[in-house]
Parts: sequence; structure tokens; C-alpha cells
Amino acid sequence: MLQKVRIVGSGLIGTSIGLGLVQRGVSVDMVDSDPSAQALAQDLIGGVAVIDPELVIFALPTSLLSQVISKEIDLNPHSTFMDVGSVKNEVVLQVKTFSGLSSRFLPTHPMAGREIGGAGSARADLFQGRSWILTPEPDCRADSKKLVLDLITSLGATAIELSAPDHDAAVAKISHLPQIAASLLAKQLLGTPPEWMELAGQGLRDTTRIAGSDEQLWKEIIHSNRGEISALLISLQNDLTQMIAALADPATIAELIAAGRAGKALIPGKHGGTAREYSYLPIVIDDKPGQLGAIFNECAAMQVNVEDLNIEHSPGQLSALITLALSLPDAEKLFAHLTSIGWNVHPVRK
Amino acid sequence: MLQKVRIVGSGLIGTSIGLGLVQRGVSVDMVDSDPSAQALAQDLIGGVAVIDPELVIFALPTSLLSQVISKEIDLNPHSTFMDVGSVKNEVVLQVKTFSGLSSRFLPTHPMAGREIGGAGSARADLFQGRSWILTPEPDCRADSKKLVLDLITSLGATAIELSAPDHDAAVAKISHLPQIAASLLAKQLLGTPPEWMELAGQGLRDTTRIAGSDEQLWKEIIHSNRGEISALLISLQNDLTQMIAALADPATIAELIAAGRAGKALIPGKHGGTAREYSYLPIVIDDKPGQLGAIFNECAAMQVNVEDLNIEHSPGQLSALITLALSLPDAEKLFAHLTSIGWNVHPVRK
Repeated sequence: MLQKVRIVGSGLIGTSIGLGLVQRGVSVDMVDSDPSAQALAQDLIGGVAVIDPELVIFALPTSLLSQVISKEIDLNPHSTFMDVGSVKNEVVLQVKTFSGLSSRFLPTHPMAGREIGGAGSARADLFQGRSWILTPEPDCRADSKKLVLDLITSLGATAIELSAPDHDAAVAKISHLPQIAASLLAKQLLGTPPEWMELAGQGLRDTTRIAGSDEQLWKEIIHSNRGEISALLISLQNDLTQMIAALADPATIAELIAAGRAGKALIPGKHGGTAREYSYLPIVIDDKPGQLGAIFNECAAMQVNVEDLNIEHSPGQLSALITLALSLPDAEKLFAHLTSIGWNVHPVRK
Repeated sequence: MLQKVRIVGSGLIGTSIGLGLVQRGVSVDMVDSDPSAQALAQDLIGGVAVIDPELVIFALPTSLLSQVISKEIDLNPHSTFMDVGSVKNEVVLQVKTFSGLSSRFLPTHPMAGREIGGAGSARADLFQGRSWILTPEPDCRADSKKLVLDLITSLGATAIELSAPDHDAAVAKISHLPQIAASLLAKQLLGTPPEWMELAGQGLRDTTRIAGSDEQLWKEIIHSNRGEISALLISLQNDLTQMIAALADPATIAELIAAGRAGKALIPGKHGGTAREYSYLPIVIDDKPGQLGAIFNECAAMQVNVEDLNIEHSPGQLSALITLALSLPDAEKLFAHLTSIGWNVHPVRK
């Protein structure tokens, strides 16, 4: 088991790891190039000076890794190292400039919320239930890998092993491309008259939600993974060109929209299983405290499990439309029950 | 008040209007070029033959309007007419080919769910709480407009008046462009290894949700509004080109991402008011029946109103992260309360 850990970088991720480890009895030393950030993080987690840590964690932007890596290797000649950056190929390249280091350096990527906020926003349970990818090189030592797996598991995350190139290609597609698409789509809204924006529905809200992300974080991620992202953006651009050319040709428009639906169907459902088809039960409620609770009480009484939920507030009205995602048998059971006791329930949609 | 209405087209929208009107004591006659569809709709709503209707509603794809409009004008020389298509400029053009018709023909667009499904999926309350746009021409008669406003109000919708060009420009931006962006983004997922798709998070799910839409419906909408959509797609394409060129230049990437955040901020909050900043309270729950109900009971007991809710299921885990959107005072009150009775609540995020 882990006993002594040194964390280089006292931002949200580093401090959250520190908090989680200290709660599990590990001695943790937080360090940072900024002495006041270091002092804050050390205070927050109850950190202590640590000699000969088994594990040194780089929790700083990958662009700053080169400034600290040499010194840390010299200071900790027997330690295992890991980083937590969002892009892995460039970390592997840096590690390879140090002879033999890849045997005890594990590039990793916790798939956890990366709000900006520094040590003050850290949470011991930031990684609970999240995926945490590791991309060990072929010469990685078994004991080093075990240390990192212990860390991931003890913080409540699920370890997933990929090669660094596969990782970068995968996150380019499932994370970086959607971010860029959402940001550029939302950019088109600039200058729109407010009275048009009042007509915005759930579709616009969903497609642009992540456009609220921080540009300082994303400029680094996108720049770092530009090799993978470039090919995806060019493919998207080609499809956009095809759509523009097809605007007078309904059959081709239909093909492109249908291809999108086929792509969406590849996104798995909950619990990492294969995609599940939910049924949807729309319910109109008064938009006031107690209504949602009453509905969920009925769900619990009927032993119905709500898989997902959407709340839509009608403009200018004091009612709300909530849509429950359920299994089909649950949806039918709940529809009959809620209708019988007077709720304003619409028929189940599949 | 409305007494006699003729509805031409027995699909979801037409039959839903018919259902709603019959419930309010209006005599409604459903007609359709397909005799069996007409018979089904007429049976479903309890329709009757109607002579001299005050209002004739075209509830069919706009591409089919030209096949029926002459006959309906001849049949109903004194009636007011309206349609319910998603694009309005082309309807105005068709109406103008009949001398004087624009004085008693109102192009309208109910912003209600347009699932495919025909009469069998109709719901009397489909329009409850929705916006319903009307785009009268300058020579529109006051009595005709009043009839249409009566219909909209009696079905529980909110009438919003726009010019036809403004309507088409507005829906191109807030509805058609997001649909195309989501579909083309989701199309990029085709061929992705399933193990990469397992890493998909909420961002990918949100940005591609509407990519599940029906291509037969959308090919007509996109084709009909291609004039407005074309300019928007070209603008998006220009920004995509700029992003591709900027991948090696973090400062420009940051500018594009920041512009997206500024665009997203223009989307208003609930109840058609100006955008409201919510606070977010993350709660980790066991993924089983009764947990959500218990939380909402606590919300009701504390007089806390949940504005929105997100449920995130962790891959491979039996816990779920729910995030409540609340006002800041409500979020702080609920955080203190839930923490005190043992729930796994994370600090409030602003």
C-alpha cells in the first residue's frame, strides 16, 4: 500500500488527490513553484514533509512539466512517477528524453471535472466513480504500475489501460472535437437579437452547454493534441462542405442526418454497458417546491428506477415539463399509476 | 370564440390541435388525402362534418400545401386560413400567388415536439406551455388574426409575433444550425472502437443528443430554409477553418473558445427571463429506487426549488452523481441540511 506521496502542483487536481490520499492515511507532501499556493494546499490537506516518496505525481499543466522533471528525478532516484495531463503522447516523448525513466513513469489521465479554481476548489471525492486512464510504455515496471493502480483504486476511480496514441486519438474524438464543435456553434450566436434568443429550446441548450468551458484550460489541451484533432476537424469540415453543397438536395441532407443518428447510437448507455433504449414519460408539473419530490416518491413506491431526467421550463409559464427516462416496463407501470392518481402524464414515448 | 374548424392533414400536429379543440367544445372536421388516416383521426378526436368553418388549418408538410390550397380556398371562401409549418418564407410566397389571400391566411409555427408518429401519437396538450409563432403579413385582417390568437391561447400556448423573414432567420440560428452541427458531429463517431466510446462523458452526450432526430422531417426543414441556413453554415465553416489554422497557436484557440462562451451566455434562462446564474450542488447517490425521491423530499421540506437537474451514471459503478441547479441561497441552505443528515454532498459550485 501507498505510504508516502509527493505531489508537484497544487491546483484542483493535485490538491484533490492529496485530500483523498490523506483521508486514507497516506503521508502527502504538496509542492508548488508558487510558495503561497504550496502553503495553502499543504494547510488544506494537512500535508507533511516527505522523504523518499514511493510515488511522485506531476499535477501541473504539461507545458510546465519540462521545468520540474529533471529536478524531481534527481531528488527522487527510486520513486515511481506519474502525471495527470489530458494529452499523453507529448508526455511520453518528454519521458523518453530521460534514459530508463519510462520503466517507472506512468502517464495517466483522470477523466474528472477540470473546473478552474485551484486548491480551494479541491474535493477528496473528485475522482469517485470516474474513469482514470493509464498509458504505460512497454518497459513499465510491474511494481510501478501496481503503485499507480493502488492510487487510482483508493481514490474510487476505475483504471483503464490504453496506449498513449490510442488515448490521444480517443479523447480527441469523444472530448476535444465535441468541445470545439460546441464552442464554434455557440460563437455563431454572437449578435443574435435577444427576442430571437427567447425562442431557444433544449436542443440549443444541450448542444452548447460545454461551450461555457474555460479557454485557458482548453487552449492547452487543443494545442497539445493538435495532431489528432486536426484530422477530425478536417473530416467535420468536409461533411460541412457536403451539407452546404446539398442544401438544395433533400436526399443528401437526409443521408447526412441519418449518418449522424447512426453515429449517436454508438454512444453507450449507463454503467459502461451497450447503448440502452429508454422510454420517455413526459409529466407536466407546477413549477414549485415539492412537485418533483412527490413524483419521485411515487417512483420509489412503484419500485421504478429513473435512469435520467430532463426538466424543461416553459417561457412565460409557471409550469414545467419533466421527462423521465425509464425502461419500457417501468414507464408503462408508472404511466398507469400516475394517471390513476391524477398527475398530468403524457403517453410513453419510445 | 371558435366554433367550427377544419383541419387539413391528420398527422401528429393536426390531430393534436383537433383533440385540444374538441376538448374545448369546438366542432372539428379532420380531413386527409389518405382516407384511412382521415378516418382514424376523425375517430380519435370525435370529429364531425363541418360546413363553413371559421378557420381552416393546414397541418401537412409545406411541400404538399400547393396540392390542396386552391381547392380549400374554393371550398371555404369566407374562412380564415393558417398553416403550422417550421419554415415561413415559402408559405408567404405561396399565399401571395392567390390575390387577397394574405389578408386572411396566417402563417404560424408551433414550437412543439415534432416526433414522427401520426395521429396515434397525438396529444391534446402537445402545445401547453409552448411558444407558437405567427407571422402575419401587413394586410392581415384583425378578425382573422384574432381567431388564430384565440386558437393558440385556447391550446395553452404563448403567441409570439414575428415577420416571416425574422422567423426563418431566428429558427435557422437557434434550431436548424444546432441540428446540423449535432448531426455532423455525431457522424464523426462512425467507426470509433467501442472501447473508446466507453470513455464518452456528458459533454459528448449533450452535444449529440438531438442527432437522434428523424431525417425525413429534417431534410424538408433544412431544404425549405436553405437560404438562411446556408449563410450560417458558411460562417461556421469559416470559424472551423480558422480553428484548423490556429491549432499551433494557443492564443487564437483561446480567442475562439472564449467567443463561444460569450455566445452561449446569450441563451436566456427559464421563464423567458434574462439568463440566470444558477449554483450547482453535486450529490453522490446509490443508483437505486428511492434515492432521488428522498432528496427531493428534503428539498421540499427546506422550501428549496430545483431549477434543473443532471444525472450522471458512472461507468462500471452502481453510484450516480446528481447535480442540482439552484439559486445560491437555496444551494447553501440545502448543502448544510443534506450534509447534516449524512448525504454525500459536494461543495456548491457557482
